[in-house]
Amino acid sequence: MSAASELLRIDRARSAERIRREVETLTGPAFTRSQTSICRYAYTPEYRRTLDHFTAAFEQIGYTVAEDAVGNLVAQNVPAGERVFGLGSHCDSNRNGGPWDGTLGVVVALEVCRLAAEHALELPLRAISFLEEEGSGFGQMLLGSRIAAGRVTDADLTEHVRALDDGRPFAAHAAEAGYAPDRWREASRTLDDLDGWIETHIEQARTLQDEGLALGIVETIAGYVHADVEIRGRADHAGGTPMDARVDALAVAGEVVLELERRAREAGNATVGTVGELAVEPGLINAIPGGVRLSLDVRGPDGDAVRGVVDGLVAFAEAAGARRGATVAYAERQQLAPTPMDGAIVDALAGAAAAAGVAHKRMISGAAHDTMCVADRAPTAMLFVPCRDGISHAPDESADPADAALAAEVALNALLRLRAAR
Amino acid sequence: MSAASELLRIDRARSAERIRREVETLTGPAFTRSQTSICRYAYTPEYRRTLDHFTAAFEQIGYTVAEDAVGNLVAQNVPAGERVFGLGSHCDSNRNGGPWDGTLGVVVALEVCRLAAEHALELPLRAISFLEEEGSGFGQMLLGSRIAAGRVTDADLTEHVRALDDGRPFAAHAAEAGYAPDRWREASRTLDDLDGWIETHIEQARTLQDEGLALGIVETIAGYVHADVEIRGRADHAGGTPMDARVDALAVAGEVVLELERRAREAGNATVGTVGELAVEPGLINAIPGGVRLSLDVRGPDGDAVRGVVDGLVAFAEAAGARRGATVAYAERQQLAPTPMDGAIVDALAGAAAAAGVAHKRMISGAAHDTMCVADRAPTAMLFVPCRDGISHAPDESADPADAALAAEVALNALLRLRAAR
Repeated sequence: MSAASELLRIDRARSAERIRREVETLTGPAFTRSQTSICRYAYTPEYRRTLDHFTAAFEQIGYTVAEDAVGNLVAQNVPAGERVFGLGSHCDSNRNGGPWDGTLGVVVALEVCRLAAEHALELPLRAISFLEEEGSGFGQMLLGSRIAAGRVTDADLTEHVRALDDGRPFAAHAAEAGYAPDRWREASRTLDDLDGWIETHIEQARTLQDEGLALGIVETIAGYVHADVEIRGRADHAGGTPMDARVDALAVAGEVVLELERRAREAGNATVGTVGELAVEPGLINAIPGGVRLSLDVRGPDGDAVRGVVDGLVAFAEAAGARRGATVAYAERQQLAPTPMDGAIVDALAGAAAAAGVAHKRMISGAAHDTMCVADRAPTAMLFVPCRDGISHAPDESADPADAALAAEVALNALLRLRAAR
Repeated sequence: MSAASELLRIDRARSAERIRREVETLTGPAFTRSQTSICRYAYTPEYRRTLDHFTAAFEQIGYTVAEDAVGNLVAQNVPAGERVFGLGSHCDSNRNGGPWDGTLGVVVALEVCRLAAEHALELPLRAISFLEEEGSGFGQMLLGSRIAAGRVTDADLTEHVRALDDGRPFAAHAAEAGYAPDRWREASRTLDDLDGWIETHIEQARTLQDEGLALGIVETIAGYVHADVEIRGRADHAGGTPMDARVDALAVAGEVVLELERRAREAGNATVGTVGELAVEPGLINAIPGGVRLSLDVRGPDGDAVRGVVDGLVAFAEAAGARRGATVAYAERQQLAPTPMDGAIVDALAGAAAAAGVAHKRMISGAAHDTMCVADRAPTAMLFVPCRDGISHAPDESADPADAALAAEVALNALLRLRAAR
């Protein structure tokens, strides 16, 4: 099978209903620590029950299910060591999350596996649910997939990465949950033997909705720089200090906020820049701000453009501070290079979407995803499903199961195309 | 006595030492609720002991001491009903305060009374320590002097003004402390019969220090507008949302911060404008700010200029918001007109300072003071003593007792000039 005409048509309504039911099931009280949102993170009873739910579902269609040394869930329909196509995402949430972020990707993986079984396609498949993508338990994004990709150190797991709830190390919690964190390197097997990988995720933005499209095919996951800028001025009395005698840290910050916006626009090429956190000291109506700490989030598919915006902004901030007598300190939290998706998988997805008549476009993922780590080891791509008004990481996060069913259909057909092309 | 040559010379070193000792005494553990700062506010044991300390000191020089219906302390050396000159300030602090703010003015009043007694000047004097100037107990500035000036309502005291510690009304706390808050109108007597009023206070800015002056004579207390600006944008994902699709509330706020600075400079005439509080929602590194609340503090001796800056800024903010698709709401917390000081008292102070060879200048008070309320009922002026680096409302607030002694000398001589001119 290689031509667009050889499309496997699925019962879209049935798939949509199955997906809807799975997502809805996982909003139940057994699966969230919060009464008002989805709150689910590593090594909690709610997370454990979620893994058990998926384990049972995969076993029901004949898959072998296991968890690796730290708790990434792996379900597979062929013996270990055979080449497979991978699908999946994560089933943890942020602490005030919604039903769809991450979970959708595992549910779509399950649906693809169900469809492959029902249609007796004999596709070798592996579904993965990565641990702790959101960092809600341990404050570090993509933790499970980074461990699988070998992007951590022993010291990270035994020392640096600690539970937000009690401050104890990741390794202690993992061991208590029955895992073998000292053997974390064995989790690399989770990414062995992958001929391809497709993660489905809600878009977390509104471009698909605005353009009336049902599906996005990610060509590149943006790289990013996360950093803090600390501005030190002088906290004088707001009434007694003439305008010319001030060292107002917030005035410097105001310039920085607007300059970041200007530079991100100027950089073009889908580069974006955001100041999302800004804290003022002392933070009194009648005190000139003596200190401001603000966060920088600069992203884009072009790593040089991202770095250029950051470097230019830091130089600007230092000069703007100096003009006012303030000092500016820059500290990087994290940086990640852009991750290009695999052209063959992107083409297979686009071909399948076109053949199925699904309104779609190729696009960039501004958000980071586990697929960035999978891409260290395998050809990858992602599918984006529209989410209402772009809302994510919030209880009213919403998506249409019908769109998710289209994603399952397109992913399955893309895998069939890839198998045919082998 | 009316000529500058008829100067009463005091023992400056002795006055400085007495002032130093009083201020230091009141930093002791009996007089502050904090181990690391001065923290003293209405109806606490520490505040009670501070009033008791001043009561004993005034009684020792033969003054009659009383507290009015809400707890303003009044010490007087002539029978009620006779005309007097008034001196004083407040002896409460902000919650993380220093030894000098307010307390200095009561201590200088005590020193002037001591000097008048020692020199047998037969000056009719009243010293006042106003309750709750800082608002640390009940969140409302100038509360004691506003009550004395009749600038409150029954409902303010029984309902609106509530303790920051337990949320119960001012009247309940005042009654428990042994006062008669239902008879608050009788506190107006505290301001009866005043032929003049001089409040001494630390400058809370650095202009005297920068100019090498020992004394400032306040000609006008700036009026001010305190307000909040609330900007509503849209909290989208920082990675997934193109620059052109954003409604970033913080970008609007950045424009507002810089525009306030520009307009305050442009208004001139000592107008100042400050954004001291700024809070971002949701306040996450990877979320575009959907909401920002910021405070406005605009002050100056020219009420029209202050109002012009505020009105112009609000119009600017609305337009800047509209350009980006954000809404802007303005809410005024409080406004107070500028308070001109009495020319005769200012001249008497300037004449006394010149005669005593004290390096001084006439200036504006950017901060609000109890004298604004006293001015409703009497001719007033203020003396400013330099404070180190302009620091106030902080534990390391510092001033030189020698400067404070000069203030006492100048105040006393000014009163002698005023009496002579009667």
